[in-house]
Amino acid sequence: MKKYAVIVAGGSGSRMGTQVPKQFLMLYNRPVLWYSLRAFLDAYEDLEIVLVLPEEHMETGKKLLASTQAPHRIRAVAGGATRFHSVKKGLDSISDRSIIFVHDGVRCLVTPTLIRRCFEKALETGNAIPAIRCVDSVRVEMSDGNRPLDRDTIRIIQTPQTFSSELIQLAFGQPYDESFTDEAVVVEKTGASIHLVEGEPTNIKITRPIDLVIAEKILGERSVL
Amino acid sequence: MKKYAVIVAGGSGSRMGTQVPKQFLMLYNRPVLWYSLRAFLDAYEDLEIVLVLPEEHMETGKKLLASTQAPHRIRAVAGGATRFHSVKKGLDSISDRSIIFVHDGVRCLVTPTLIRRCFEKALETGNAIPAIRCVDSVRVEMSDGNRPLDRDTIRIIQTPQTFSSELIQLAFGQPYDESFTDEAVVVEKTGASIHLVEGEPTNIKITRPIDLVIAEKILGERSVL
Repeated sequence: MKKYAVIVAGGSGSRMGTQVPKQFLMLYNRPVLWYSLRAFLDAYEDLEIVLVLPEEHMETGKKLLASTQAPHRIRAVAGGATRFHSVKKGLDSISDRSIIFVHDGVRCLVTPTLIRRCFEKALETGNAIPAIRCVDSVRVEMSDGNRPLDRDTIRIIQTPQTFSSELIQLAFGQPYDESFTDEAVVVEKTGASIHLVEGEPTNIKITRPIDLVIAEKILGERSVL
Repeated sequence: MKKYAVIVAGGSGSRMGTQVPKQFLMLYNRPVLWYSLRAFLDAYEDLEIVLVLPEEHMETGKKLLASTQAPHRIRAVAGGATRFHSVKKGLDSISDRSIIFVHDGVRCLVTPTLIRRCFEKALETGNAIPAIRCVDSVRVEMSDGNRPLDRDTIRIIQTPQTFSSELIQLAFGQPYDESFTDEAVVVEKTGASIHLVEGEPTNIKITRPIDLVIAEKILGERSVL
């Protein structure tokens, strides 16, 4: 089965307090996004990447993809106004029947192992959403206070959110809705059930300065092992 | 107002895959628990610590508290069968009207700043529970599948969970219930409202080997700053 990864690198960097968007910040001597691309390129030899970039960062992105040593397997497309519109632009460039991974560019510690686990499950059930359990207590804020949730039932969702091309193309044909906070929700709106697979605790999103520090440490440990 | 910290160090180390319970694993040249004690000792000069330890680790714990340079401010008590029973044993040794912090011994990156924020709020409202927002999508598992939760309403709960002595002593007079997964839930059962305060993203719980690596990095960054 043909495989595509739509990697969304649309952040503005506002939460990092930096001018450079977080996907282009350096981890050791490579940008964050480089590691995300590398994991997908390594997971499957026949996988191609659609890299969705903000219009103003297309040039930086193109230079980056040239540095992967597999630029022929990556095409860059310009993103849209929201996550939904950016993913849709990526999907619009794919016409083959395939398994499609949608991945946050800033989840740069994703491993080929997780990517393959998502693929196998999506092949079997139509979709696979990586999720981890929560090690802390959880509460929910309401208009009149807050209440506890049963921690054992809570799943923290990661990417790559992985789908058969038929299912995700159908889902992204729907008109945009504000409730579309991730791809699982878009797909669920078609009536499909969502299938969770075990994620990875280290598959963190780079959103705050401390995350860069943690990511360097994790990458450092991996190259030793 | 008098201040006590009940620090619960009752883990068995099973999730770490180690013989040594995680509260005694080393971070640089000190055990995890040492850093937790240090943060509370540094937060307030008039704060005393009740350190709740598993019976079989009392000796190790006593050696550790001697190494804090403030052993006269710490007393060690043996824990019980559950978290609830361990905290209750700690509370039973406190009779003054005070503000009481209940803290996970393995949250060793807690800062005096957070401890003081909790104190101020608990003084004002009777309780203060540190919580952070969730940066990921969240779903809930049900018997017949799973569904999305509104991430913006989700709060990840940390410690120190902080209370007026009257409120927490009253709450821990209740008979044990399986729903008592943290102190906030026990206190809520008395009819009190729970007040959340902003936690710290770095206030992580050491539960897996990767957390030790992350904690060392965060501590390293702090001593540079």
